[in-house]
Amino acid sequence: MDFPALRFEVEELYAAYVECLDDDQLERWPALFTADCLYKVIPRENYDRGLPLALILCESKGMLQDRVEALRRTSVYAPRALRHLVSNIRIKGHDGDVIRVQANYAVLQTLTGEATHVFNTGKYVDQLVREDGQLKFKEKLCVFDSVVVPGSLVYPI
Amino acid sequence: MDFPALRFEVEELYAAYVECLDDDQLERWPALFTADCLYKVIPRENYDRGLPLALILCESKGMLQDRVEALRRTSVYAPRALRHLVSNIRIKGHDGDVIRVQANYAVLQTLTGEATHVFNTGKYVDQLVREDGQLKFKEKLCVFDSVVVPGSLVYPI
Amino acid sequence: MDFPALRFEVEELYAAYVECLDDDQLERWPALFTADCLYKVIPRENYDRGLPLALILCESKGMLQDRVEALRRTSVYAPRALRHLVSNIRIKGHDGDVIRVQANYAVLQTLTGEATHVFNTGKYVDQLVREDGQLKFKEKLCVFDSVVVPGSLVYPI
Repeated sequence: MDFPALRFEVEELYAAYVECLDDDQLERWPALFTADCLYKVIPRENYDRGLPLALILCESKGMLQDRVEALRRTSVYAPRALRHLVSNIRIKGHDGDVIRVQANYAVLQTLTGEATHVFNTGKYVDQLVREDGQLKFKEKLCVFDSVVVPGSLVYPI
Repeated sequence: MDFPALRFEVEELYAAYVECLDDDQLERWPALFTADCLYKVIPRENYDRGLPLALILCESKGMLQDRVEALRRTSVYAPRALRHLVSNIRIKGHDGDVIRVQANYAVLQTLTGEATHVFNTGKYVDQLVREDGQLKFKEKLCVFDSVVVPGSLVYPI
Repeated sequence: MDFPALRFEVEELYAAYVECLDDDQLERWPALFTADCLYKVIPRENYDRGLPLALILCESKGMLQDRVEALRRTSVYAPRALRHLVSNIRIKGHDGDVIRVQANYAVLQTLTGEATHVFNTGKYVDQLVREDGQLKFKEKLCVFDSVVVPGSLVYPI
């Protein structure tokens, strides 16, 4: 396997993921997942102890689309800008067709008229598969460091 | 076109850019631009609505050099250390010889004797061209997230 | 020399380094250094002026192992989660077998039950060599921006 080429492709997927969120193109976000995906935003303590409780849990691409729909139509929240930094992207190994990837992230948030602050940091613990030649998320766990969420967690991480 | 090789080269340009700013080698900063460049530091709101008002606007390499000269000789400001993090560098496409690149950035600032804080976050929306074999910025827009600038924006972003 | 391949390898080393620290696998951290290594956490002011005083100074792999041992057995400190972001990794050149690398870093820290904050930012000024086919740190200087360290600097940077 051509390792540098694969990491390049993985990094492209993460860049596309972040761009959907930061450029407010949420409608394009579910397309980066497989149909039967798992998406979870879970505190570090629960993840480390194998406890299931998560802040966000979506068990299919349909649920991701529902979430976007809810954000666009029904949710009420203050306008904000998100800025993701993703670093230390690392291919951890393979289980058959599944590529395991880990990365660090920080989300910096700006509420309109306020200063930018650190909103959420943590690591992505992900499983990627190839679908129609394209890498996609089969599983994406956002394991976050602080149980203190400033304001509310509206958008995906 | 060899995509991984090009992204490698693009990343080198961004690393050189950041090093000029963070290692206080401002004199080397204009050389990363073409002669007829455009450099703009503009709030997200204005950028999204097509409004022209920007915090910094330089319309040629000469204006960038002037700015450095002003910073070195005439401006008065408290000493500070900058630290740029650039992430999600993404080649968006080509218009002829022009390569369109987008990236996320965060600038962390440290005033002497104070704690480090988030100074500015946003995205670079850039146009790169090759000049004498070297990639350079033909256009660099720093689209920042918060209209609240803590202290003053002295150095380029 | 194949530059993209080398930078790929360098980035893998940095990702492994960060993973040891952020995933609390400190025991694996010294293995990333050569036996006769130098590890220093030093304020920017002192580094720039050539002053020797550092917050952490380890002059061999044995001293790194001692430090881990002390952290695990004797030190007393509040539980915390670290999150490193490393950016702008840049190969600066070679001195014989030694590869000089510079990178920017930010460490975001979360004390249990508190919000995440910027703990420390700075640059890595490193010397890498190949040992048994593997890139390792022969020298790693963590040159940090702020003399104000919030709380205490417990873990390596």
